[in-house]
Amino acid sequence: MEYKVKVHWGDTDAAGIVFYPNFYKWMDEATHEFFSAIGHPTDTLFKANVALPLIETHCDFKRPVLYNVELIVQSEIVLLKEKVFKLSHQFYCEGQLVAEGYEVRAWASTADGHAKAVYIPDQVKNKLLLKGSGK
Amino acid sequence: MEYKVKVHWGDTDAAGIVFYPNFYKWMDEATHEFFSAIGHPTDTLFKANVALPLIETHCDFKRPVLYNVELIVQSEIVLLKEKVFKLSHQFYCEGQLVAEGYEVRAWASTADGHAKAVYIPDQVKNKLLLKGSGK
Amino acid sequence: MEYKVKVHWGDTDAAGIVFYPNFYKWMDEATHEFFSAIGHPTDTLFKANVALPLIETHCDFKRPVLYNVELIVQSEIVLLKEKVFKLSHQFYCEGQLVAEGYEVRAWASTADGHAKAVYIPDQVKNKLLLKGSGK
Amino acid sequence: MEYKVKVHWGDTDAAGIVFYPNFYKWMDEATHEFFSAIGHPTDTLFKANVALPLIETHCDFKRPVLYNVELIVQSEIVLLKEKVFKLSHQFYCEGQLVAEGYEVRAWASTADGHAKAVYIPDQVKNKLLLKGSGK
Repeated sequence: MEYKVKVHWGDTDAAGIVFYPNFYKWMDEATHEFFSAIGHPTDTLFKANVALPLIETHCDFKRPVLYNVELIVQSEIVLLKEKVFKLSHQFYCEGQLVAEGYEVRAWASTADGHAKAVYIPDQVKNKLLLKGSGK
Repeated sequence: MEYKVKVHWGDTDAAGIVFYPNFYKWMDEATHEFFSAIGHPTDTLFKANVALPLIETHCDFKRPVLYNVELIVQSEIVLLKEKVFKLSHQFYCEGQLVAEGYEVRAWASTADGHAKAVYIPDQVKNKLLLKGSGK
Repeated sequence: MEYKVKVHWGDTDAAGIVFYPNFYKWMDEATHEFFSAIGHPTDTLFKANVALPLIETHCDFKRPVLYNVELIVQSEIVLLKEKVFKLSHQFYCEGQLVAEGYEVRAWASTADGHAKAVYIPDQVKNKLLLKGSGK
Repeated sequence: MEYKVKVHWGDTDAAGIVFYPNFYKWMDEATHEFFSAIGHPTDTLFKANVALPLIETHCDFKRPVLYNVELIVQSEIVLLKEKVFKLSHQFYCEGQLVAEGYEVRAWASTADGHAKAVYIPDQVKNKLLLKGSGK
């Protein structure tokens, strides 16, 4: 899946390049857009007591990114386990890879008031594999 | 009430000065600290179905602020009505007024699933007046 | 001018509605997009030692906004003086006005190392009036 | 080194827990405080054409964190190479480890207009080892 981000004036730091936590904000946005794209928007999931808590996140930074440019985030499912999945996110700016990271998240039930990892429904798994492996 | 804020590297924009929405973030923080200081922390209020939704906010910017400095935010109740209150926030950096703003908020019940302005309890009103008018 | 914003998961606060400083972030984005639209992107201006420092900002909040919705920001020049301009920003969600604010900014030279208000060039003024008053 | 962070209302997401990119914001803050603590505040470094660009960052999330709590970030130098260093950051809330991450950064000269990794001065290296390995 592809998600487009415009880098804005306020996204930069005192050096005039993207403040790095924003790459994680954009990964999070890409993940939510991903679930919308497969027909399971996270606000609907959340009302049904399903959350996607983070287990681990990572990012490698290749090149500094200025503001007023557009980034293309390519997101892919790279690991799919029973209760856990891993999404890779690659950031491109004018055709060049500028950063790449990943998020490992659980599929969790919040029915008991706290998030507890549960089995990802087969229907969701199939959609993750179908939409998630291509681009 | 006084609230201290350290300005960080990521709080600035490409011009190397504070990105202005952060002043509002700090006003919000100061308000929450204010309610903690009068014995009504907002997480406790929230569990009791009370929220403090914004009606109006404003800020005048006097001087640019760099990072790695400390700001002192002085917050005061400047208007207290039956369901609504106004907090002014003045930002000082090394003794100089660098920005001043305000927030108008309602005291609201979320018991019905949405925020609805209700009467501020007298006990809270008294504390707001007592703590809020001095510094 | 119209600028579209998707409200994301991380843009909300613990009450599940937009954390209000984000409205100011979006106003700032809309202003930068506005200057791109009239042919004076702010990164080009910045390289030519022109900045647009804030003098005053304001926002009225009409309705709470949830995440996973799209906002349309309508921005208009409502005051144009020799060195200063005022942009109003109205936020619509599904046709309803949810917030409206404004920014007062100076046209400033940074040639001497600090921002100093200077005359807005006539060419820019004309474009601001032309593009800025319609929608 | 220890750095204290108060978690605020706006730091959370719609689930009422910390929005995860904030952990990276706090790591960045901890790193800047770290350099202040060893006598090389990053604003002074920046004026001397030294920046600390990110190569890689990572975080493992152990427990959800609510707002209105204080986090203690313990930061340590865990790798020190000729031009590159790695800082680990552990987040504690009420004595419990809630997240742990790291940042790999270069010591870079910006004298030529872009950041280029250069040798870390011995004097800085010694301070990093001295202050950085203890707590």
